[in-house]
Amino acid sequence: MPDRNAELTILSRDADLLKNEITALNCNALRIVQCATRADDIDTDKVHILLADPDLAVKVVEQCHQLRWCQSTWAGNKPLLQLAKQDYTLTGVRGIFGEKMREYVFAYLLHFSRDIDTFRALESAPQQHRWMQPAPGTLHGTTLGILGAGSIASSLLPVAHAFGMRVIGLNSKGKAQPGYDAIFASGDKQKFAATCHAIVNLLPDTSATVNFIDERFLSALPEGAVFINAGRGSAVDDSALLNALDNGMLRAAVLDVFRQEPLPESHPFWSHPKVWVSQHTAAISAPEDVARVFAKNLDRYLNGEPLHYQLDFERGY
Amino acid sequence: MPDRNAELTILSRDADLLKNEITALNCNALRIVQCATRADDIDTDKVHILLADPDLAVKVVEQCHQLRWCQSTWAGNKPLLQLAKQDYTLTGVRGIFGEKMREYVFAYLLHFSRDIDTFRALESAPQQHRWMQPAPGTLHGTTLGILGAGSIASSLLPVAHAFGMRVIGLNSKGKAQPGYDAIFASGDKQKFAATCHAIVNLLPDTSATVNFIDERFLSALPEGAVFINAGRGSAVDDSALLNALDNGMLRAAVLDVFRQEPLPESHPFWSHPKVWVSQHTAAISAPEDVARVFAKNLDRYLNGEPLHYQLDFERGY
Repeated sequence: MPDRNAELTILSRDADLLKNEITALNCNALRIVQCATRADDIDTDKVHILLADPDLAVKVVEQCHQLRWCQSTWAGNKPLLQLAKQDYTLTGVRGIFGEKMREYVFAYLLHFSRDIDTFRALESAPQQHRWMQPAPGTLHGTTLGILGAGSIASSLLPVAHAFGMRVIGLNSKGKAQPGYDAIFASGDKQKFAATCHAIVNLLPDTSATVNFIDERFLSALPEGAVFINAGRGSAVDDSALLNALDNGMLRAAVLDVFRQEPLPESHPFWSHPKVWVSQHTAAISAPEDVARVFAKNLDRYLNGEPLHYQLDFERGY
Repeated sequence: MPDRNAELTILSRDADLLKNEITALNCNALRIVQCATRADDIDTDKVHILLADPDLAVKVVEQCHQLRWCQSTWAGNKPLLQLAKQDYTLTGVRGIFGEKMREYVFAYLLHFSRDIDTFRALESAPQQHRWMQPAPGTLHGTTLGILGAGSIASSLLPVAHAFGMRVIGLNSKGKAQPGYDAIFASGDKQKFAATCHAIVNLLPDTSATVNFIDERFLSALPEGAVFINAGRGSAVDDSALLNALDNGMLRAAVLDVFRQEPLPESHPFWSHPKVWVSQHTAAISAPEDVARVFAKNLDRYLNGEPLHYQLDFERGY
């Protein structure tokens, strides 16, 4: 077994919670030597293993000359991947996003199809008008369209199928994917949109996806469709979306991500009655999830095995 | 092929919708000869096949001397089964309830675990306090407890499993059921309750289930549990439930059924902030669902084959 230093530095907004979770997991040979919420509080000479929020890590890693491995607490690690320092192993967190994402997506799809707000409003209606038994809708037999048919998207499929939904996907070249009833290429986006009762955007952030959800796309959706953006804010043409909501064609837009975050105080999304702002919490990793990923990787690290979810400095992801 | 009269009378609150749906299905040889929303408007001499809401059918079937088959639009048909007239075939609707029920149950479970109301409320908070990124909970890894582990309950299992939930059930004798992590007998109801983060009641209406959900049961639930009643109103001790909600132990009660329906205007359930009244709509059959069941049975009827979902006058269900 390789002789590896198992001294951990935690640098995260959730430092204390992470420390508790990791301590509870009773990791073999591990010593937590530093635990901080601010980069300034870290003694960089003592950093061997780093568990860190990447936006905090980026402020210190270039000074961490003993750093061997950094376990990020997030999936997106662009800033770290762009630094000159690349002589350490960088790992992200994966696998836990799908679990959260499918609960997020179906929470809102069911919220609208079951008309939860209508029933809630009737509770405070004048007494003689309360018991109206409005008929809820159903997801069964409807079509879910997923923009960006990758690994997080695939975690939606078992639930969509269990509810009896048809699922179609879109990716740049229309490349076939298992589990979808049909896959469309970017060029066919209007044809794709035409049969979708619900749309979930999970497109990656590339130059080709900027403003992909535009007037052409939105006007091709069937009346009453629900749009969920859990990918990137840049994929949506904000004014086209507001127009589609005001024209009455779109039932609701559930937005987790925005061009600028926090969403500016004056942005019309905040007050639009058909927009639901979920504040980039669709698939946040809880400290216990991150601790679980870290502990598994620590075992592999101490045994000299390749780590899970390694990021590639060359490819940039 | 037996020579059977294919003249249909429709008697239902949804008569016109049913007529449209059935016409669209283009049923072989069928003629719709009467279509009414009130029993008084039916010429009973012309009734050969009857598609009817059972509470309306009960007012006319004893005068329908030519009646051969009545397709009910509901599952519960007690009043028809109790009449002296039993010289015809009575069929119910089944299969469609599970589809609706699972959407109902998971709509509310996800509503609470994803804290949809918290995010909605933040949209109208003072501007500088809007972007708070509250952390939603998760269903993954939590335990769903089902009271009454029968055929409707089994339709919840694929979705619960797709979300990574543990599912336990309870039935009178603790008889094992496929797909459950554990099954408890009625006598062990407190032991059953102790590990449930969410409870769905689907117990049938028998003398043994009256007030089954009582103070003993409710006080055994973990703090923050959600209770959903989609079975029978009589299974719940209303005051014990209100106490459990007021003591702060129970997060919410979602109630579809009540001892008296419509729920009386003065009942405290209407105004209790932790009670969600869904007005006995959890698993209503839409006209298109009923039309589908009817059309399949019509085929079988015209071919002299046994009908689906036949009710038994002897057994009473």
